[in-house]
Amino acid sequence: MSTFAVVGAGMMGSALCVPLADAGHEVRLVGTHLDDAIISELRRSGVHPHLRVELPPGIRPYTNTELPDAVQGVDAIALGVSSAGVAWAGRRLAPFVTRGLPILMISKGLALTDAAVQVLPDVLRDQLDASVRDGVQPVAVAGPCIAGELAHRVATAAVFTGRDGALVDRLMRLASTDYYHVRPSLDVVGVEVCAALKNAYALGVAAAWGLHEKRGGSPGSVAMHNTESAVFAQAIVEMERLVGLLGGDPRSATWLPGAGDLYVTCNAGRTGRLGRLLGLGLGRDAAIAHMAGATLESLEILQVMRTVLARLERDGRLGSREIPLLRHLAEVALDDAPVGFPFERFFENRVEQAVRR
Amino acid sequence: MSTFAVVGAGMMGSALCVPLADAGHEVRLVGTHLDDAIISELRRSGVHPHLRVELPPGIRPYTNTELPDAVQGVDAIALGVSSAGVAWAGRRLAPFVTRGLPILMISKGLALTDAAVQVLPDVLRDQLDASVRDGVQPVAVAGPCIAGELAHRVATAAVFTGRDGALVDRLMRLASTDYYHVRPSLDVVGVEVCAALKNAYALGVAAAWGLHEKRGGSPGSVAMHNTESAVFAQAIVEMERLVGLLGGDPRSATWLPGAGDLYVTCNAGRTGRLGRLLGLGLGRDAAIAHMAGATLESLEILQVMRTVLARLERDGRLGSREIPLLRHLAEVALDDAPVGFPFERFFENRVEQAVRR
Repeated sequence: MSTFAVVGAGMMGSALCVPLADAGHEVRLVGTHLDDAIISELRRSGVHPHLRVELPPGIRPYTNTELPDAVQGVDAIALGVSSAGVAWAGRRLAPFVTRGLPILMISKGLALTDAAVQVLPDVLRDQLDASVRDGVQPVAVAGPCIAGELAHRVATAAVFTGRDGALVDRLMRLASTDYYHVRPSLDVVGVEVCAALKNAYALGVAAAWGLHEKRGGSPGSVAMHNTESAVFAQAIVEMERLVGLLGGDPRSATWLPGAGDLYVTCNAGRTGRLGRLLGLGLGRDAAIAHMAGATLESLEILQVMRTVLARLERDGRLGSREIPLLRHLAEVALDDAPVGFPFERFFENRVEQAVRR
Repeated sequence: MSTFAVVGAGMMGSALCVPLADAGHEVRLVGTHLDDAIISELRRSGVHPHLRVELPPGIRPYTNTELPDAVQGVDAIALGVSSAGVAWAGRRLAPFVTRGLPILMISKGLALTDAAVQVLPDVLRDQLDASVRDGVQPVAVAGPCIAGELAHRVATAAVFTGRDGALVDRLMRLASTDYYHVRPSLDVVGVEVCAALKNAYALGVAAAWGLHEKRGGSPGSVAMHNTESAVFAQAIVEMERLVGLLGGDPRSATWLPGAGDLYVTCNAGRTGRLGRLLGLGLGRDAAIAHMAGATLESLEILQVMRTVLARLERDGRLGSREIPLLRHLAEVALDDAPVGFPFERFFENRVEQAVRR
């Protein structure tokens, strides 16, 4: 048995506590300054107000101000904050992080730097003291994992990725249960790029549903599954290409981190809802207004990737016709262009491979 | 303008007539001996009784007995029969097939031979006179394409694959419209293996929905999207491996022919309905009885693949733990085993790659 402090009491951080508790660990769930109401409710009723599920009784809730107590003597820290909160969390935790302390991260996103992009485990490391930094290689969680399902112990497969293979292996063994099936990967960049990109691409698949409804369709009638599927397949092809360009292993795009996580994101959650509204033709601003303040990772990553694509083109590493789907989605979601998929430009890379063979 | 005879007036053959007619070709739709009622109704009202859509007026319906008239002077034949009907169609058409006549095939499946498996374009060729056979390289259609949507001109991307690249290119240009986006591939084996396998794997994804309902879930509640996504990702990994073992290009599994077509098959059609029933725990026989005589390609391909896997193992080309999802689906759909995905055996190949890197 180990002791975990899970920092961030939102949906995903709290859901991760369930397999950790079921695996027999002591789990301390620490809210951020935004989570006070959640922690209060957990103390009062044991029910997480957003997950709407009673957490296992062994999980002990802590408020943000109690963080120093919560991390006292822990064997590992899990970070459940949003991508925007990673640097903050790094600064907040830095005084308590020692060399070799295992850190598990469930935040998804990419940070833009002057050089290129930075994966979130490195954003976190940058906040640590130089004396500690070399001894810490955070392990990131990716793959299809809707928090509400994990909290209900629905069978799930996830990927733990980090540069320290022994640590990945150790955390994987600690967190696995008979419903939480964890697989290891050393391809931190590839896995994390997929984890971020899937939010952008799910927007595209969901926009096809919206187009269908806009044409008067209902789920029972002839839908736009063909269109969705073409967008889905093009998303995988573009993820492979982008992962390679950003220094990861393109194969990460074609199993759990890419295709698997994209599949789940298309089928559930706020990215799908936003995509549907864009497909319906609501327009960017009205669609965002409908989302009532939800964190929209899809827009964040589209903004980051627009800059990344421009840099790759400038450096002669990417053709101006490549990555047509992501470019179109950026125009729709950032510039308020209407949805109209550029099918004629889809699959060009793959066709070259297929015909060259 | 060219003249096409489309043989087989079922859903998919008839739907393919729509882009062909819209592209300006003369289209003759020829029923098989099973399609007399469809041809009568098309003559009476112009409406296809199964697609429930009025076909473009230029499409001329022919009965099976009128086939010799229908193929008179055509520039190309498109074959829209089921996989079981391909050999029959080959024999029926053989007298009319000349060297160099373009043949487009939309049948999906794999035939088992003493040696290994045979793709359907080769099953068709085997029925042709030896003097003609060398001059005929049928082009197969794959990728996500629900007939009902194609008939409604919903935007779709498909793959045309054949060994004669110039012919693939020519048919692609003839069939493309502003909603039917065709991409070429020379990987006949890889594309056709994916086209067949996706029916088996879609059964697995759909079984996860059934499991969800069995546990009392409704689509609006916490579903089993995590489980579906893990099954989906494992399906891609297994398709890649099987395509490679059967002599195709594994990359065909990760764009339209594999991932794209699997996505559409999970979301619509009879394979999904059968999978849901199996997930609900109806048992093999009751589930099949519920399908009321529909062609169940998923069972056909599972039966074929069971033999293929046994041969590959016998020849030392496949480990007994590999391809765990397909093996489980064969047990469920052929042997009446209960659905219980072997997650602990998923992604082993991919993990080896990811950790070896």
